[in-house]
Amino acid sequence: MTPLETHLGLKVEAVNRELAALLPDGNGPERKLYEAMRYATLNGGKRLRPFLVVSSAQLFDVPERYALRAAAAVELVHCYSLVHDDLPAMDDDDLRRGLPTCHVKFDEATAILAGDGLLTLAFAVLSAPETHPDAEVRCALVRGLSEASGALGMVGGQMFDLEAERVRLELDAVTRLQQLKTGALFTFCCEAGAVLGRAPEAAHQALRAYAKDLGLAFQIADDLLDEEGTERELGKKVGKDAAQGKATFVSLLGTAGARARARDLAERAAKQLDLFGAKAELLAALARYVVERRT
Amino acid sequence: MTPLETHLGLKVEAVNRELAALLPDGNGPERKLYEAMRYATLNGGKRLRPFLVVSSAQLFDVPERYALRAAAAVELVHCYSLVHDDLPAMDDDDLRRGLPTCHVKFDEATAILAGDGLLTLAFAVLSAPETHPDAEVRCALVRGLSEASGALGMVGGQMFDLEAERVRLELDAVTRLQQLKTGALFTFCCEAGAVLGRAPEAAHQALRAYAKDLGLAFQIADDLLDEEGTERELGKKVGKDAAQGKATFVSLLGTAGARARARDLAERAAKQLDLFGAKAELLAALARYVVERRT
Repeated sequence: MTPLETHLGLKVEAVNRELAALLPDGNGPERKLYEAMRYATLNGGKRLRPFLVVSSAQLFDVPERYALRAAAAVELVHCYSLVHDDLPAMDDDDLRRGLPTCHVKFDEATAILAGDGLLTLAFAVLSAPETHPDAEVRCALVRGLSEASGALGMVGGQMFDLEAERVRLELDAVTRLQQLKTGALFTFCCEAGAVLGRAPEAAHQALRAYAKDLGLAFQIADDLLDEEGTERELGKKVGKDAAQGKATFVSLLGTAGARARARDLAERAAKQLDLFGAKAELLAALARYVVERRT
Repeated sequence: MTPLETHLGLKVEAVNRELAALLPDGNGPERKLYEAMRYATLNGGKRLRPFLVVSSAQLFDVPERYALRAAAAVELVHCYSLVHDDLPAMDDDDLRRGLPTCHVKFDEATAILAGDGLLTLAFAVLSAPETHPDAEVRCALVRGLSEASGALGMVGGQMFDLEAERVRLELDAVTRLQQLKTGALFTFCCEAGAVLGRAPEAAHQALRAYAKDLGLAFQIADDLLDEEGTERELGKKVGKDAAQGKATFVSLLGTAGARARARDLAERAAKQLDLFGAKAELLAALARYVVERRT
């Protein structure tokens, strides 16, 4: 294992512990809801977004207990989005992280409510004093996460994606779609460290620039995996975009072109962090890792 | 019109203006999402919850521009909950506020996303500096609303309600279900004024006690309307609970018993506000109005 992989593994465990402690548990008539929320959150996942929060917070020596709560909040939002996007009325997926999707395991009503509960919990976590002693910081996190994940960010991106099934998008439209659907949340994750660390504006700018390149590189790699990976490796259905004739970075740039573009973006992302010096090595390594990953 | 009705009418207009300004609008590929969010929020509604926020804030002379933002956030959460609860996988309702429900007017995917977008927007609104200059106050609002509307509040109540279709509940279980499904959000609304006004704990306690009685009275009145009202008057399907053999306050207490209980609760709710003197007249009148309303 590379130092990055060791580090990733440790952070995955810490984030999972945090999530397990935050999620509701119990035996009342709402038990099925709690089970579905835990099922959708605690069964695997690369925890890439939490890693970005924790690693960006390290740049500013933020105590890790604060960073882990912000990281958990982002992962709750990510998991909710997967549960809702997998619903029959949306992408209609049966498999996620190698397991039945939430509505297959439970039922549609429970999956809708579990998603709602996860999204709502994220804001309860961020606003609680345990996340940061400064309420201005907590409010900035709540605002940043809600704007990144709402109608002008992730939810808008999912709507765009569903609408895009009817038209053939060009490269600039696919790029804008990615920016909404996954890019805005990536940007929030990377900037969260600067928010928690009350860092100067130059640090915010550098992290936003890194996140923008990283998010795009991540999506291109995702499109490549959807083309070249297997259901077994990825734990979800593959080849859906191609089967639906949807424009992706691979269909627009070709396999080789897409891979070259992703690598360029990863290098550029790493360079955006120059002002942090050696402290940013993990984030720089992550940008390269994201492009070369097999899952 | 009574003074209360005049006042209610004015507040409805002010809340509607606030909501219209906060909701996204535009012409991009996400247009359908914005339209669905506006459709689900701006077509009628009694705005009872916003009225509670604004009226409780008046007790502490909170500037109305702050109260209206908190009020709008609550209504966004209420409207999202209606959109998701009406979905085919949930209560499967076609009619709401006299119009086709969101998934009938648009489609299921859009309705799910519109609900998600409304819920997320509520937290963006509360966390923004325009809602209150003190970030501690804004965080308290975010936390209060997320806890009231999440898995341990409203979303948990909806899960309980769906599960309850399979068993016959007794009075204490129906009361707990109401407390989760509608009571927790009522309590947040009434306490929001005290949060915005940084009021002493005694004021919080009084408003919570008022909200508890009011919420229960409201739900009993709702059950009575479901039994006695018409689809035309209410703008939604009626008699569903009875048709499904679900336990309600009316099935458990009888029509006369339920009405007497609701009136008792309304009187008790009004008395909980004694410490505020004449300033609380509107809220006291509201408790009585809620029980006697025809829609």
